[in-house]
Amino acid sequence: MQYPKSLEALIEAFARYPGVGRKTAERYAMHTLTRLTKQDVDQFSEALVQAISAIKPCPVCHHLTDLEQCEICADTHRDSSRIMVVENSKDVFSIEKSGTYKGKYHVLGGALSPIQGVGPEELNLSTLWQRVAEGEVKEVILATSATQEGETTALYLKRILSSTDLLVTRIGYGVPVGANLEYADDQTLSKAIENRRVF
Amino acid sequence: MQYPKSLEALIEAFARYPGVGRKTAERYAMHTLTRLTKQDVDQFSEALVQAISAIKPCPVCHHLTDLEQCEICADTHRDSSRIMVVENSKDVFSIEKSGTYKGKYHVLGGALSPIQGVGPEELNLSTLWQRVAEGEVKEVILATSATQEGETTALYLKRILSSTDLLVTRIGYGVPVGANLEYADDQTLSKAIENRRVF
Repeated sequence: MQYPKSLEALIEAFARYPGVGRKTAERYAMHTLTRLTKQDVDQFSEALVQAISAIKPCPVCHHLTDLEQCEICADTHRDSSRIMVVENSKDVFSIEKSGTYKGKYHVLGGALSPIQGVGPEELNLSTLWQRVAEGEVKEVILATSATQEGETTALYLKRILSSTDLLVTRIGYGVPVGANLEYADDQTLSKAIENRRVF
Repeated sequence: MQYPKSLEALIEAFARYPGVGRKTAERYAMHTLTRLTKQDVDQFSEALVQAISAIKPCPVCHHLTDLEQCEICADTHRDSSRIMVVENSKDVFSIEKSGTYKGKYHVLGGALSPIQGVGPEELNLSTLWQRVAEGEVKEVILATSATQEGETTALYLKRILSSTDLLVTRIGYGVPVGANLEYADDQTLSKAIENRRVF
């Protein structure tokens, strides 16, 4: 016996998420139908549509925001002489939660990965070059993950930025090696930012 | 920095799912915004609303269906003298996939759990008593999970049904003890059904 069509569609929608296999997707779909109220499900459906339409990348730093320009770029009290380069918007939220950093950000939208076919043209780099060319920036902090892709990306950026007189630093000890930045706790992130070194 | 409102709403929606903590919900929400297309998200949103409105419990056996009566209840070629009692609709899909069983089902909608406040009145029992009272049923197969709640439920049903002349069986060795039925593979389920014993 097949699942009813609309249930199958729901299972397939859940299965598009990272780490969600067929069994987990089935579990989520059944939970939707048997444990959530109609109101919960309507709210979820609405939240999906709202989020995808209201939240866009900031035109300056590419951080996700529901404003014209993200609140970090718009905040004149933050230190514009520093740009911290991260892979994903999630990393910005994590670092902001740690409360250590008062500069600006730049979200690459990923990391270089020849195996997965992610080259420099897939990352948000042209806006980064533009920002550093404007002259206000003195330091670029490379906060890509401590994974192979993150290190490759850091080295790539370092190589290009070495032709400028910018201080290029890399966040340091603290972020567990081999882990994605988004799993680091506040204290680890704080330490990593304090211990950044010239790269 | 707080998440944008609509992103926070999406995170909270994901966090309503079993086994999904705050971090995982954040991960799913970010995946929605950065890795899925607008079309994927619209489809997901639509699938939620479609599923919750199109899929209802069958009035006879409570199995989830998008038909007036589920296709198992409506199938006159199936053996109406046997009713297999399961906890959830998911179990029906699993057992049907194993292809071993050709009788009917009854979905309780849970299992007895004094700790979680699930008593007999929370389960779909009145329709079960009605079905067995109609006289066509000869055997009730108790296929609740091999958990404490599942066993309690089986014993409860056995106690009530022992006043009738129905054959009451319990699915047997095969289902791993302490596990939910929905995680059992096809072969395990087939074996458990073959090895059912008088209860």
